[in-house]
Amino acid sequence: MKNLFAPCLILCLLFSVPAVFADEGMWTFDNPPLKQWKEKYNFEPSKEWLDHVRLATVRLNDGGTGSFVSEDGLLITNQHVAGGQLQKVSTAEHDYIRDGFYAKSAAEEMKCPDLEVNVLVSFEDVTAAVQQAAKPGASDKEANEQRKAKAAEIEKESTDKTGLRSEIVKLYNGGEYWIYRYKKYTDVRLVFAPEEQIAFFGGDYDNFTYPRYELDMAFFRVYENGKPAKTEYFKWSANGPADGEFVILPGNPGSTSRLLTVAQLRYQRDFGNPLQMQVWTIRRDALLHYGATSPEAARQGSTQRRLLDNSMKRLVGQQTGLMGSALLSRKEAEEKALRAAVAAKPELERSYGNAWTEIERAYSGLPAMSKRLAFSTLSSSRLASIATSIVLYSQEAQKPNDARYDEYRGSNLESLKFGLLSPAPIYPAMEKALLTAWLEEALKALGPNDPFIKAIVGNSTPSEVVSSVIGETKLANVATRKSLLDGGQTAVNASNDPLIALARKVVPIIRELRDWQENNILSVDTSAGQKIAQARFAVYGKSVSPDANFTLRLSYGQALGYEQGTTLVPYKTTFYGLYDRAIGFAEKSPFNLPTRYKEAKTLLDLSTPLDFVYTADTIGGNSGSPVINRNAEIVGLNFDSNIQKLPNRYAYIEASEGGRAVGVHSVAIIETLRKLYGANKLADEILGQK
Amino acid sequence: MKNLFAPCLILCLLFSVPAVFADEGMWTFDNPPLKQWKEKYNFEPSKEWLDHVRLATVRLNDGGTGSFVSEDGLLITNQHVAGGQLQKVSTAEHDYIRDGFYAKSAAEEMKCPDLEVNVLVSFEDVTAAVQQAAKPGASDKEANEQRKAKAAEIEKESTDKTGLRSEIVKLYNGGEYWIYRYKKYTDVRLVFAPEEQIAFFGGDYDNFTYPRYELDMAFFRVYENGKPAKTEYFKWSANGPADGEFVILPGNPGSTSRLLTVAQLRYQRDFGNPLQMQVWTIRRDALLHYGATSPEAARQGSTQRRLLDNSMKRLVGQQTGLMGSALLSRKEAEEKALRAAVAAKPELERSYGNAWTEIERAYSGLPAMSKRLAFSTLSSSRLASIATSIVLYSQEAQKPNDARYDEYRGSNLESLKFGLLSPAPIYPAMEKALLTAWLEEALKALGPNDPFIKAIVGNSTPSEVVSSVIGETKLANVATRKSLLDGGQTAVNASNDPLIALARKVVPIIRELRDWQENNILSVDTSAGQKIAQARFAVYGKSVSPDANFTLRLSYGQALGYEQGTTLVPYKTTFYGLYDRAIGFAEKSPFNLPTRYKEAKTLLDLSTPLDFVYTADTIGGNSGSPVINRNAEIVGLNFDSNIQKLPNRYAYIEASEGGRAVGVHSVAIIETLRKLYGANKLADEILGQK
Repeated sequence: MKNLFAPCLILCLLFSVPAVFADEGMWTFDNPPLKQWKEKYNFEPSKEWLDHVRLATVRLNDGGTGSFVSEDGLLITNQHVAGGQLQKVSTAEHDYIRDGFYAKSAAEEMKCPDLEVNVLVSFEDVTAAVQQAAKPGASDKEANEQRKAKAAEIEKESTDKTGLRSEIVKLYNGGEYWIYRYKKYTDVRLVFAPEEQIAFFGGDYDNFTYPRYELDMAFFRVYENGKPAKTEYFKWSANGPADGEFVILPGNPGSTSRLLTVAQLRYQRDFGNPLQMQVWTIRRDALLHYGATSPEAARQGSTQRRLLDNSMKRLVGQQTGLMGSALLSRKEAEEKALRAAVAAKPELERSYGNAWTEIERAYSGLPAMSKRLAFSTLSSSRLASIATSIVLYSQEAQKPNDARYDEYRGSNLESLKFGLLSPAPIYPAMEKALLTAWLEEALKALGPNDPFIKAIVGNSTPSEVVSSVIGETKLANVATRKSLLDGGQTAVNASNDPLIALARKVVPIIRELRDWQENNILSVDTSAGQKIAQARFAVYGKSVSPDANFTLRLSYGQALGYEQGTTLVPYKTTFYGLYDRAIGFAEKSPFNLPTRYKEAKTLLDLSTPLDFVYTADTIGGNSGSPVINRNAEIVGLNFDSNIQKLPNRYAYIEASEGGRAVGVHSVAIIETLRKLYGANKLADEILGQK
Repeated sequence: MKNLFAPCLILCLLFSVPAVFADEGMWTFDNPPLKQWKEKYNFEPSKEWLDHVRLATVRLNDGGTGSFVSEDGLLITNQHVAGGQLQKVSTAEHDYIRDGFYAKSAAEEMKCPDLEVNVLVSFEDVTAAVQQAAKPGASDKEANEQRKAKAAEIEKESTDKTGLRSEIVKLYNGGEYWIYRYKKYTDVRLVFAPEEQIAFFGGDYDNFTYPRYELDMAFFRVYENGKPAKTEYFKWSANGPADGEFVILPGNPGSTSRLLTVAQLRYQRDFGNPLQMQVWTIRRDALLHYGATSPEAARQGSTQRRLLDNSMKRLVGQQTGLMGSALLSRKEAEEKALRAAVAAKPELERSYGNAWTEIERAYSGLPAMSKRLAFSTLSSSRLASIATSIVLYSQEAQKPNDARYDEYRGSNLESLKFGLLSPAPIYPAMEKALLTAWLEEALKALGPNDPFIKAIVGNSTPSEVVSSVIGETKLANVATRKSLLDGGQTAVNASNDPLIALARKVVPIIRELRDWQENNILSVDTSAGQKIAQARFAVYGKSVSPDANFTLRLSYGQALGYEQGTTLVPYKTTFYGLYDRAIGFAEKSPFNLPTRYKEAKTLLDLSTPLDFVYTADTIGGNSGSPVINRNAEIVGLNFDSNIQKLPNRYAYIEASEGGRAVGVHSVAIIETLRKLYGANKLADEILGQK
């Protein structure tokens, strides 16, 4: 606690000039923070070092990061990132979420139904080409379409030429465009996962909490042509991080909003976030109610519910930051300073001066549309989502590649189809429960005369509609989906599957809303965002990293404890603490331990470090990021942030404010694999001890 | 964290009517909360139960509580309560604070220089006699003198008749007066104390922190006529408290300010507390600087520094509560409601209606005097305090008993002399350092023309004055003090001891200020306080407990964990957690472990509970209170509160707000005595297994 008796400083005064703080940033590989690394940590990586790190790090399409830890394609990530696949390969008889999984031999490695792994093989700056595609005098909407068409063209050219998954990546809200090319693995097999009860010890309570006692890890292996793929990989650190040690995290942070204008932030605070909370709450509650009907129902929904709990808790943390006066004051001061610098130079003012008011004007129209945008969707049901995608695909496929929605063109389409044709199990009762709850709430939110509601519910009730369409659809059958995809618009239009019929009614509404948002908001975001980015470059140079967008980045910092209230929090925890917390709660759920841990605590060296914290700038999507040292050895496995760090969606939380990322310590991983799981073979492979 | 997206309730709205919350109160033994106990905990103690608990609980004049745990006068309290005596019996060669102490036999039990132990033997309501001593028409000052004279008379009568230490106890700010009679033990011997590093693990950082890992315990034995005294005593619980179990704490809470008016609270917030912080900071910093000169200097000041650190951290917590809007709003609402109820009845309005404005008027004059009151003292030096007391005593002894300052009359005087004649060591270098620093700061605060400064410093400098008076005084010698006390005013006036000479110059100023405060503030506190108390009784009955004043009380509650932020805190910790926290900090001080704990961790059952929390309403002075169950067995040893609870000086912090008292678990005490300290004999005595 600060001394209340000393005069107080208003923090925001310190923030009136944008500056890069120590350890700030999620940096692209084309622009790593070499200056900061050298000055603060005396670290000067070679090009080879950077290439090695990039090629050993992967993106998982389930939403997370992983890294290779052996030359035979062994991949480590978090249990919670692997959770979607664990759920999909589990059955009522074999619950790999609850019980964990270990493939003692290659033959036992279990194929994942729809996990795609991407490695960033190359990247190229195409800013000039994309930006210049927008013709002088074009409206925002037209410019947007022109840029998107150019982007599609570049993507297609790259895909055709390289065979790699090629994506246009927009950085700095349109200040830069790059083409990223990924090597793609779709034969991914499960090797190891611990019991969820140790991967997620303390459950939602301990989520975003530190000190922490979790072993949130899992292993996959990528295959190529039926054999383990030969991959670039990280070596393993035998000791893990020392207190204060410099660490780097390559990873795919999902999304930040740090370059938003104050008008955009206010919209988030007053409309966007509350609406998002409402949407997630509806889904989570539906899963809770469904899960209460039987243990098997609870099992079916457990991964999705955990994800929603996590998202909701994170959103509360983010919103807390946004509702406090400090963060928004800082943003206002930064914006004011940049606009003043722009106004001071006529050529800047002419080119960029109106960007902020353009955004403000565009966003003033958004609240009136927000509810329709949020509720006019069927995405809470997997079957209904599939139906919607099939109908949209059948229509988009008629258009030239560069006029399609992003996900229906080029190499994105392949990944989309990979998901649509996944053999992962679908539980009709759960589908019904989720979709019914969703439509009932949508009806309340939008009213009976809303076009989406009328199209779906008409004179019936949500429950009647859902009962009929989910009850009778054949889309749970992968072959049915495939024949519709292959059959194109004719087949889809002719289909009398009731869910496809429903999707046909809904898609025009979805299109209308998506186009409205594209033309009225996103096009302004891009046009004005590009201006603001260019103004920022002109005034400050390329001194900050671009907002996260689930592409590969480098974060960095130190393994470091912090002050909390009037006491100190250590940089690492140990297995001793796991037992302390479990026994303190008399092992009541969610503080209960898997049987293995109760029986085997004499086998473990309890002083082994379990989790640790570091100052690196991360966000959701960094789950599973390897934490590496300057020798590019893995010292830990990132899996979370503490609660103090959550507002970092909107602004970097300085290390001194106590925000920390949380990881599993590398030594804990080897210790448990060997001593509790009998997984010496796996440990040997990780340590290169064949 | 509360859901930010739900509408917020303003807490203070709930508080507009005074109500006793669950587990609120520090109740006198004449008015235990029988109704609450019965309703919430189905507990109905007999008179014998209450008498037993009262007679087995003690007050320690060092400032804390203890309890007897064997029929042979074995007494348990906190190591930090025993700290003053440990410091006094330690030397450069034998540091019992650092190393702990264990008397393996009766012969090794070590006599404490000046520890007095009081047992409350009987109590009697004398409200009518004292209140009616104030004659109709007397001014506040006169009424105050009349009441004090009556109180002195009652005390003397009781002492003469019973031979017991007899004290008038003012409750409810003068709403009630009682005579409390104590049996007094002054032959108190040290039996056991652990190393400070385990009694105070985590140091000032972990003070007021929970989860907590401390073994803050010590044992004394009271003697009578050279033999272990036969005492009433508590039995020991073999299992300690269950989660949710009802617990009671008898103890001597030091001081609360819950019945203060809003005007008094504002004074505390704006003047009293900041000034108190300044005073303590000066002393603490002086000890820090002195301690930095050598390890032996650090040892000499360590207990005092720890007490100051503790007081300062607590004051910050209290001030935090007072500066927040919720607490003062609640107080304002309560006061408004009571004044409205008084105003509604003419007879109440006539008798009590002006009390609040009288206080407000009196306190309006206090800020102008505050600095003189705070700084015109020599109490930062033990020698100078002794000198001041001797001079005051020589003058007070000339007066009739009932006209003396409280501490110079009747049985209080005996206790005062016991302290003045203590053989505890005095360190002249430390005395010099403390007194010099104090006078330098007093000079800055008061200026060179202040009477106190002129009397002491004159044309010299603080350091010159101190160097001479402390360098040449003979008061470190107990015999010198005794001859001055025995020699009376003649001897004191004739003394050429330079510190006595200085005290003679200072005492008139101290008297002037003390009398000013007595006549202008305290007399109004009492007169108006009595009116407010009577108004409260008339409107609400005797529904709340009186403010704490270091007399015997009963607190109660449940062993219960709580929510903190978005996670849960368990009701108990274990030895596992001690090792987790120590290793997490790589055993850096103050998170290092005594050697015994490092070497012997395999001897302990680490799942043994170490500390635990409960909802009881406690405050400083409750340190060392036994935590007992409904069978009056000790389940724990109270030693602290968590940080959430600190504002409870001003208002009860509800259990749902996370405020908790912290105790050592009874099982941890036996486990460590037996397995780490080889103190089976002591453990056997506690468990009655001779």
